[in-house]
Amino acid sequence: MRYRVPKREFEFVLREVMNIEQLTQHPGYEEVTWEMLQMITDQVAEIAEDIWLPSNQIGDQIGAKFKEGEVTLPPEFHDAINAIRDTGLVTLFAHQEYGGMGFPTAFEVLGDEVMCATNMALATMTGLTKGAYRCIHQYGSEELKALYLPRMVSGEWFGTMCLTEAHCGTDLGLLRTKAIEREDGSYQLSGEKIFITGGEHDLTDNILHLVLARLPDSPKGVKGISLFLVPKFIPASDGSLGERNAIRALSIEEKMGCKGSPTCVIALEEAQGWLIGEPNHGLRAMFSMMNHERLAVGMEGVGIAEIAYQNGLAYALDRLQGRDLKGARYPEQEADPLIVHPDIRRMLLRAKSLIEGMRCLAVWTGISIDRSQIGGATREANGELVELLTPIVKALCTDLSCEIANDMLQVYGGHGYIREHGMEQLVRDLRIAPIWEGTNGIQALDLAGRKLPRDMGRLLRRFFHPALEFIELNRDDTNLKEFVEPFAKGLRGLQKTSMFLAQKGLGNPHEIGAGATDYLRQFGLVALGYMWLQMLKVAFAKCDDEEFYEYKLITGRYFFERVFPETISRAVAISAGAKTMMAMPDAGFAGDYRFSGS
Amino acid sequence: MRYRVPKREFEFVLREVMNIEQLTQHPGYEEVTWEMLQMITDQVAEIAEDIWLPSNQIGDQIGAKFKEGEVTLPPEFHDAINAIRDTGLVTLFAHQEYGGMGFPTAFEVLGDEVMCATNMALATMTGLTKGAYRCIHQYGSEELKALYLPRMVSGEWFGTMCLTEAHCGTDLGLLRTKAIEREDGSYQLSGEKIFITGGEHDLTDNILHLVLARLPDSPKGVKGISLFLVPKFIPASDGSLGERNAIRALSIEEKMGCKGSPTCVIALEEAQGWLIGEPNHGLRAMFSMMNHERLAVGMEGVGIAEIAYQNGLAYALDRLQGRDLKGARYPEQEADPLIVHPDIRRMLLRAKSLIEGMRCLAVWTGISIDRSQIGGATREANGELVELLTPIVKALCTDLSCEIANDMLQVYGGHGYIREHGMEQLVRDLRIAPIWEGTNGIQALDLAGRKLPRDMGRLLRRFFHPALEFIELNRDDTNLKEFVEPFAKGLRGLQKTSMFLAQKGLGNPHEIGAGATDYLRQFGLVALGYMWLQMLKVAFAKCDDEEFYEYKLITGRYFFERVFPETISRAVAISAGAKTMMAMPDAGFAGDYRFSGS
Repeated sequence: MRYRVPKREFEFVLREVMNIEQLTQHPGYEEVTWEMLQMITDQVAEIAEDIWLPSNQIGDQIGAKFKEGEVTLPPEFHDAINAIRDTGLVTLFAHQEYGGMGFPTAFEVLGDEVMCATNMALATMTGLTKGAYRCIHQYGSEELKALYLPRMVSGEWFGTMCLTEAHCGTDLGLLRTKAIEREDGSYQLSGEKIFITGGEHDLTDNILHLVLARLPDSPKGVKGISLFLVPKFIPASDGSLGERNAIRALSIEEKMGCKGSPTCVIALEEAQGWLIGEPNHGLRAMFSMMNHERLAVGMEGVGIAEIAYQNGLAYALDRLQGRDLKGARYPEQEADPLIVHPDIRRMLLRAKSLIEGMRCLAVWTGISIDRSQIGGATREANGELVELLTPIVKALCTDLSCEIANDMLQVYGGHGYIREHGMEQLVRDLRIAPIWEGTNGIQALDLAGRKLPRDMGRLLRRFFHPALEFIELNRDDTNLKEFVEPFAKGLRGLQKTSMFLAQKGLGNPHEIGAGATDYLRQFGLVALGYMWLQMLKVAFAKCDDEEFYEYKLITGRYFFERVFPETISRAVAISAGAKTMMAMPDAGFAGDYRFSGS
Repeated sequence: MRYRVPKREFEFVLREVMNIEQLTQHPGYEEVTWEMLQMITDQVAEIAEDIWLPSNQIGDQIGAKFKEGEVTLPPEFHDAINAIRDTGLVTLFAHQEYGGMGFPTAFEVLGDEVMCATNMALATMTGLTKGAYRCIHQYGSEELKALYLPRMVSGEWFGTMCLTEAHCGTDLGLLRTKAIEREDGSYQLSGEKIFITGGEHDLTDNILHLVLARLPDSPKGVKGISLFLVPKFIPASDGSLGERNAIRALSIEEKMGCKGSPTCVIALEEAQGWLIGEPNHGLRAMFSMMNHERLAVGMEGVGIAEIAYQNGLAYALDRLQGRDLKGARYPEQEADPLIVHPDIRRMLLRAKSLIEGMRCLAVWTGISIDRSQIGGATREANGELVELLTPIVKALCTDLSCEIANDMLQVYGGHGYIREHGMEQLVRDLRIAPIWEGTNGIQALDLAGRKLPRDMGRLLRRFFHPALEFIELNRDDTNLKEFVEPFAKGLRGLQKTSMFLAQKGLGNPHEIGAGATDYLRQFGLVALGYMWLQMLKVAFAKCDDEEFYEYKLITGRYFFERVFPETISRAVAISAGAKTMMAMPDAGFAGDYRFSGS
């Protein structure tokens, strides 16, 4: 596996398209200059390329080992974590008062991309730690924050999210883990959790579990769930480790991929925990973490798609097979490289145009988070845009990236199916991303069922208004005209399906559910179209300077010609509505064989 | 994993839609009555469900073991092969003169479906044996046929295809394995082959390798390739095993899936072989095998999609999670089953409508092979239809089925990613199918580059004429009108892209390559639409008799409403042509990072 951080791409998106340097005008971001970002990028690149990347196949082959309640990870994983600890890279994202550097989210998402590209299993664990940090920071008491946050920022202690139980995944209202208040104001938790990523391992001295549980007499369903911090070791107030808490891993799962990241069954047997936030409001606190995680999962997609693309491309340039259909391009060689074949170029250009669009969308979401935290007049508008884009980034980027990883495996032919080349690992690792942190079907329902109807479409307008404005401003631009036209058509199509779902959904919620996944895909592709318009505008302005911009024009043109048209068929599918989908009786799905059923 | 042979579906397609009983009027097929087919189906079902299915996960977990040139397969694989040997099921397909039963291909493809559903790794090896049988039968000398065929028919000896070498997969013109004639008229072969499925194993006493190699002074490229039969043990004329031949496995590959099927590196060191067919005409002989294999690989897709669907459905009926968006459907339970959720129904109905369409397309292809062998006026027309449909069945059925297997894994949520449920194995096993026996990109080029332009579109007309005729005959049918209209539009779209590619391709072969994959998908979906029209016609005629037909109407309606519209966006993508795709210089693909390149 080969990988280089695409630094020029990062610069293009962050600086030239999204104008990240404007942030330096705002308090807290003064030091985040482009020079600083470049320096950090170089540092991240060195660690990712030299230390994380070689650990990735080892993680897949050796994986996490479980023995008598302990989980051991390969030495290369320890080295990888030490490398980011030693350089202080783990502190980038966190608040300065807890030892962090307060870097913008727009930059953080690209850091996530690089770490996921080079070792997704490991990046998942550091990502959850960041999420747990945010959750404790926003909802935890001052005591909890003072005790735990600095050690998470330093990378000494990792965090987890403990939501799922055997009988409840998406439907958290069913969860059964119990918490009882103790005399000292802490709680005693009992229950069993499954699918706990990083629930046990030897990378850190302590592990901080954020656990959803029910207090006695709490309301049924999701309104009776509280959130607790349950450390593996109970620290003294100076942070020194005390007693081993009664939270233990019972086993780890055998999985399709992501084998370097232990997925644990966790038992709590009167384990000691501390309440985070208000009783019975645990989901709100957990979802402050979850929304950031969803963005991070989107970057798992972009990261894996990027490394898959880089290797697919390298193979297409190296492997000699067949001849250019127009006649030998390199008659002196026994065959031409794969890249002469249009169908190989189709897969590569589809990947490239999608990756660059997705990256831009994620950075836009990231910088909107940053802007929403700066305050001022646009604070609310930016926050609403983030709410709208989060499910799109999560689901679109993971679905498309699974397609890309599979296409890049395909470029290798039979060699892609063989372990040693590493392509099949990418496909296996990434396959979890459309599932965790809310399946992509749940993301689609969040978009179509919650975000779309909110306040008569106010969230939608956070996207539609700037997009329509862009069309108005650039419709007569000689260069952009070619792209603005199909985009405007695609945007009108999206407005139409939005209206259709909003109206139909009022009387019948099945109509929302029936169209949701196609709607998210349609919306996502239109959003990528908007990103490409912005990238193309920059590229046209500079294309005499550097070939880089010329390549951008070709890639963007490819996107509009060959990828964007999918929006048309998605719109037609949505317009069919829910009727046929809901008409099939349970018995009709099986026809003549039935195993079971309600 | 659960699985039941969908017998009622088989009856519907074979008997009611494709009228297989008509074949009994023709010499050689007199005994192939519906009662006989039912009896065989019951027998196949028993073995597949009770013996093959339980062996499948064992094959994945234990896999093929390599030690000192020998490959060992799990005992359950031996039992599975013994079961079909003992019942004589391996003889179904073969000619009566060699001990076979001469069953129609239309029926054989469904047998392939069942075997692939329950153990694809094993079915691959029996499938290759059938392919090798066909190749020897068609091109081998009478001596070779008499010696080898009866033992292949009885399942005593298996066959392989030895094409690929390390430096050549698709591009067979590059192959280097050498053959020199010996004094006794046999040949001596030396070289190394890779990716040889079933190249070594302990399931049979002998393995018959069909090996592509070059004779001395043969022309360069594909015109200098000959085909040889190289047995592992050289049999005496009575079939008793003699000397061990110098063809040996050097290693087996570690793969993403299909682990029960050993993929071998094979060395030939002056191994003894016998020429099959004419010198330098080896590819023609090999491709007589290959075309049947391509149909069989399509059935790997349909089989895996079917078992994935059955399990996804069972899980959707059993797993309680969330509530119907319109309010609890089962208020007495703590949650409703997954199947109440529209997005779960979307995935299931997409799978169901595609599987039934693909199965019908494969049976149509199969019965066209049978009709082409019967002779008479339609012989040639049927043969041409088969040529047209073969790349479509191979590529469409494997691509769509990979999507279906992934969707059915998604129905399971996190549980789908865990080994024990078996869903992730299906995804891994099937991932090879879009690659082997000619990648799906090669299938698309075969369709758009060879089949489309042949004789001014004569092959195309073998599909377009009956489809247009169906439209003419049924356009005013009150029931069918709803479906005929979108189909007619889709067919016109396909005619338009066919014209576009034919015209553009004349001047510039890149235009063919650029549109090929989208064209195959568009063609495939239109072909499925034609299958659905025929199924719907039968269903309307009988829908008062049995609920089964009512379910067919819903499934077919779902297909036209929500799956078929993809044809629109594929057509738009094709119309963009090759220009942008070919405009990107090699350097432009990478931008700022480059690993290598010509």
